[in-house]
Amino acid sequence: MSTRAAISFARGAPSLDIIDVEGLRAAADRAFVNDPGGTTAYGTAIGYVPLREWIAEHHGVEPARVLVTNGSMQADAFLFETLVQAGDAVVTERPTYDRTLLSLRGRGAEVHMVELEEDGIDVEALAADLSGGLAPKLAHIIPNFQNPAGYTLSEEKRHRLVALAREHGFLVFEDDPYVALRFEGEPLPRMLELDPERVIYASSFSKTVCPGIRVGYLVGPEALIEQIRVLATNTYISPSMVSESIVNEFCRSGALDRSIATVRTALAERAATLTAALERELPDARFHPPTGGYFLWVELPEGTDVAALFEAARERGVAFVKGTDFVLEGGENTLRLAYSGVTPAEIDEGVSRLAEAYRAVAVAA
Amino acid sequence: MSTRAAISFARGAPSLDIIDVEGLRAAADRAFVNDPGGTTAYGTAIGYVPLREWIAEHHGVEPARVLVTNGSMQADAFLFETLVQAGDAVVTERPTYDRTLLSLRGRGAEVHMVELEEDGIDVEALAADLSGGLAPKLAHIIPNFQNPAGYTLSEEKRHRLVALAREHGFLVFEDDPYVALRFEGEPLPRMLELDPERVIYASSFSKTVCPGIRVGYLVGPEALIEQIRVLATNTYISPSMVSESIVNEFCRSGALDRSIATVRTALAERAATLTAALERELPDARFHPPTGGYFLWVELPEGTDVAALFEAARERGVAFVKGTDFVLEGGENTLRLAYSGVTPAEIDEGVSRLAEAYRAVAVAA
Repeated sequence: MSTRAAISFARGAPSLDIIDVEGLRAAADRAFVNDPGGTTAYGTAIGYVPLREWIAEHHGVEPARVLVTNGSMQADAFLFETLVQAGDAVVTERPTYDRTLLSLRGRGAEVHMVELEEDGIDVEALAADLSGGLAPKLAHIIPNFQNPAGYTLSEEKRHRLVALAREHGFLVFEDDPYVALRFEGEPLPRMLELDPERVIYASSFSKTVCPGIRVGYLVGPEALIEQIRVLATNTYISPSMVSESIVNEFCRSGALDRSIATVRTALAERAATLTAALERELPDARFHPPTGGYFLWVELPEGTDVAALFEAARERGVAFVKGTDFVLEGGENTLRLAYSGVTPAEIDEGVSRLAEAYRAVAVAA
Repeated sequence: MSTRAAISFARGAPSLDIIDVEGLRAAADRAFVNDPGGTTAYGTAIGYVPLREWIAEHHGVEPARVLVTNGSMQADAFLFETLVQAGDAVVTERPTYDRTLLSLRGRGAEVHMVELEEDGIDVEALAADLSGGLAPKLAHIIPNFQNPAGYTLSEEKRHRLVALAREHGFLVFEDDPYVALRFEGEPLPRMLELDPERVIYASSFSKTVCPGIRVGYLVGPEALIEQIRVLATNTYISPSMVSESIVNEFCRSGALDRSIATVRTALAERAATLTAALERELPDARFHPPTGGYFLWVELPEGTDVAALFEAARERGVAFVKGTDFVLEGGENTLRLAYSGVTPAEIDEGVSRLAEAYRAVAVAA
């Protein structure tokens, strides 16, 4: 290991300086003052009722379509437990979030990955697979600032995907934790809005409030939400009312909007710094400049051994995640850089070391 | 339904007046001030590190034996998912906690119930079953102030159970949320202390801090805790750091000890009021006066139809849980009264209505 201070592009997590700790502290105080009963009692598996209502209003749906959970990974776990049996086909993007892959494969699902393009999943390739007999239970899609690639699904493809889901009888799982972190332009319509009976939507306050609060949620067809409510009751009775009551106060006070503005501004600066540093220091890197979110996906020239680069970077005190973690096979020349947890100065230093590692690997090869 | 104000002996939950809301508010404030980073970041699946250390010290074990979860039901779920496959035999007390029964049967376990006596599970009956070929994966035991019966496992039986577990190669799951709620006398040794490699222990802050905080934990063999850590990581990354950091501050400030004293005093008064009211109003009821915890188990004369009593009580605005919910068969003349959520005045009024319902049912029969 390097004796230089470690710089991590590995973890998709925010740095402390962009978390509104004072806002959280004030929200916690109000939670215990304004609703001591609801904040301290068991509650029920649907979540803290006023937060559930806030989320329902935010999405313009009935509260009966909303279930609040301990983080959105827990929501995913409930959804997969409810819908996916061993041997079921599930479509994902290629590459996709490594924990989703792990969770689906852990349940014995047949994961069918479809290439992710810069404007989202290759819907025509998916359509061809469906015509060829692929019959998935659901398609897992991260529509905005995808993890790991940072890409966003175009509006046209959103419509096409929902139409395919209707035609072929599968559900779209719209996994959308990064939606609020757009650097510029207007948000695209959610697939949930295009067909509320065909889409189950997940999001989270991890990227807009803080990860340690562990509050996520599902919005979906009422019967499916009810099935998951029963499963959630049997699993843990209820999620943390304390966490959810704090989030409720944070959202309703306006702190959420201020926090999102802070996070967006910081991330946009970090993304710009990273883009400039890569262009300057590592001209062999191919990437799409991020328009939101946490991640930048790098393709190095065919034949580059990113596993060796990973070791060479580690020796220089720099961490990232190898692209191979996000696919079932291939991807040996790719990697994911998360810029959410590093300052611009760290980004410059980190990319400089990464470029040094790249040159060392290239010379050795 | 009655037009009289509803009185519920149904839910095993504390009333708001015995929760230290101000103490929680102060603990929340300290959590964000003293450790903003640890409180707001993802953390890991083992739980908030300082709370894990506090729990380890409390039990006199290494932190590597401790995993903190979103409530102890979630801990149970992880444990069952790790250890129990469909068809596995699992021993429980008869009667036992209805959610545990549901969870085990949901996993396809062969639940083998062994009669609960006033000093705990009938260990000689269990020994006979084990000699007769019963080979359980684990035995689920609620040793103190059992739910639903309120009974406590004697010290002698604790030793015998652990010896049986060693001899027959099963684990004891010591499920102990009520241990701190003893009205008098000294606590008995935990089975965990008798054999730390043979016992997995669960407890919770739901009854000593508040349920809505959803913080529970497991203490057990290091390899098993490590297996569950991996499962927890894949399920939800980490539990609520905010909840756990608040509990940590609450425990370390002395608020926990004060809260336990408040809860114990109130529960002892409620139990005494309930006992006196039953003796006065419902002399047919047989029960063991509680020495701690939330619950009192009532046996009515053989042939009493508690399902009919349940309806007659409901018409009079009184709720309880039928004994049949806590067993696989039988128990038609039994019921559980929870006195944790009702004031002494409500208890007197509730028992008076219950007695009225009992007389109505007896006359109708």
